[in-house]
Amino acid sequence: MFCPFLENREEEKMINKLVAKIKETKAPIVVGLDPMLNYIPEHVQKKAFAEFGETLEGAAEAIWQFNKEIVDKTYDLIPAVKPQIAMYEQFGVPGIEAFKKTVDYCKSKDLVVIGDIKRGDIGSTSAAYAVGHLGSVKVGSKEYVPFDEDFATVNPYLGSDGVNPFIDVCKEHKKGLFILVKTSNPSSGEFQDQLIDGKPLYELVGEKVAQWGADCMGDEYSYIGAVVGATYPEMGKVLRKVMPKSYILVPGYGAQGGQGKDLVHFFNEDGLGAIVNSSRGIIAAYKQEAYAKFGAENFGDASRAAVEAMVADIQGALEAR
Amino acid sequence: MFCPFLENREEEKMINKLVAKIKETKAPIVVGLDPMLNYIPEHVQKKAFAEFGETLEGAAEAIWQFNKEIVDKTYDLIPAVKPQIAMYEQFGVPGIEAFKKTVDYCKSKDLVVIGDIKRGDIGSTSAAYAVGHLGSVKVGSKEYVPFDEDFATVNPYLGSDGVNPFIDVCKEHKKGLFILVKTSNPSSGEFQDQLIDGKPLYELVGEKVAQWGADCMGDEYSYIGAVVGATYPEMGKVLRKVMPKSYILVPGYGAQGGQGKDLVHFFNEDGLGAIVNSSRGIIAAYKQEAYAKFGAENFGDASRAAVEAMVADIQGALEAR
Repeated sequence: MFCPFLENREEEKMINKLVAKIKETKAPIVVGLDPMLNYIPEHVQKKAFAEFGETLEGAAEAIWQFNKEIVDKTYDLIPAVKPQIAMYEQFGVPGIEAFKKTVDYCKSKDLVVIGDIKRGDIGSTSAAYAVGHLGSVKVGSKEYVPFDEDFATVNPYLGSDGVNPFIDVCKEHKKGLFILVKTSNPSSGEFQDQLIDGKPLYELVGEKVAQWGADCMGDEYSYIGAVVGATYPEMGKVLRKVMPKSYILVPGYGAQGGQGKDLVHFFNEDGLGAIVNSSRGIIAAYKQEAYAKFGAENFGDASRAAVEAMVADIQGALEAR
Repeated sequence: MFCPFLENREEEKMINKLVAKIKETKAPIVVGLDPMLNYIPEHVQKKAFAEFGETLEGAAEAIWQFNKEIVDKTYDLIPAVKPQIAMYEQFGVPGIEAFKKTVDYCKSKDLVVIGDIKRGDIGSTSAAYAVGHLGSVKVGSKEYVPFDEDFATVNPYLGSDGVNPFIDVCKEHKKGLFILVKTSNPSSGEFQDQLIDGKPLYELVGEKVAQWGADCMGDEYSYIGAVVGATYPEMGKVLRKVMPKSYILVPGYGAQGGQGKDLVHFFNEDGLGAIVNSSRGIIAAYKQEAYAKFGAENFGDASRAAVEAMVADIQGALEAR
């Protein structure tokens, strides 16, 4: 009642919010908040260690301060962030606290939060991950939203039993998924490219994503999306057609080798349908020659400049096609 | 120096410790510490909520007290426990704290701890999970062991790049892995059973496990193991031969339908090579008719009786073959 717009936003399906924000910002990109300690400038680490010591708590504080600055300097340009939980989990419980703080802060800036958690299990175990990250959990007569990301990445190796509990929670809470189809790493083909009746496994998984997603539509796109690596543009072209209504989350831009011109086939004719992630290329931009002029002190400004360059690269490629 | 035996134990490869403890206890089983709130007796929940309220902290306390009682009543009969992190993660940060407390407590009882985390990512991200769960992480000049399980389960969908960082950490820290090969759920065949040149995907993954494991030997077995569901005994028979040196972690006993007689082919001739998990069947034994006489107050004694019955069932089946 106090803030009806925000209330409306919360009632909305997250896929609609994501699409609306992509149109608004004209930036089909997501900033990967994957903070390795060696990406974090000395002065941020020093300050955190001065307060908490060289402890897990100190590392978590450094990560959080680093994230906060990057979010403050980029949130108006971007629709979404993608914190990679592994980078937090490596610092134990304090790291997980920093993850939660980051999710909450990004949501307070009205960013869509894609939890890159790559979870996947079966039955009640998948359901536990799903309620923990996307839904709510009951404790006695009370109900809590433990991590409360808007989307989560999910590993499909265990089949429908593993994915359906996530889908159920998404339906109830208007959240969404990105299911691993073809990952960006060099050896992803070891299993994913194996031919089954002449068709690679990733295509079979892509067909399943389309099936799972058909029943889960937002206004224009399904809230069951897919992960397809920027490093495999030809496969992206095929998978775009296999899953026409699924948003494709595309990691591997920049540091992993993908460029705007390689990515046009991940998008539909409407210029929508894909969201490209860059992590190191944005958050550690100040370490690149192109942005060295900002200096480590102004790493947030370097990140902002890197976001602007990435958006221009992708928009340019989309306009040129 | 203070306790040389313990020091030695810590220097030992975990796979050797696991095998030694299985021989010692004559129990090739692992108790799955997967506490759903509805498994936890009223009186335990009430006490926890009285102290912490109906909060995530209250739920975490109930889980921890429940686990502690089960461990206290069973630790002398079993070689290992397998906490399923999803059941903790669903309660957010306090849940993760209960997971860590459980890991530490089980290790203080000299149990081998298999973290059922089913993580899997690529490159530096897999490395982050690996150091967080099995290794150590550097913060400035200090080094920490954040979760410190002895083994972890890993999802192979992303290929060697995803698994190798885990293997590297296992080599350094003498820990081990169980890689998902054929999972116990009904729809696991959707992708895992697909034929590739006439061979199912799970067999291809099994061959990879054998390859990865060849370079990672303990005294008798490799520390790169596999997960193969009890619900697929015929496939277990094949996979046993594909991965002769890999320990097989077998979920799906009891509640999911598997029985001792179905499991003999998961074991090698030496009676080793497999470790069978039961979760609900042990930790919620007091809810079963067979153990109802113990009453909810004595749920730990019911779990102890269920462990004894499970060991007898599996040992009987092994002797009868």
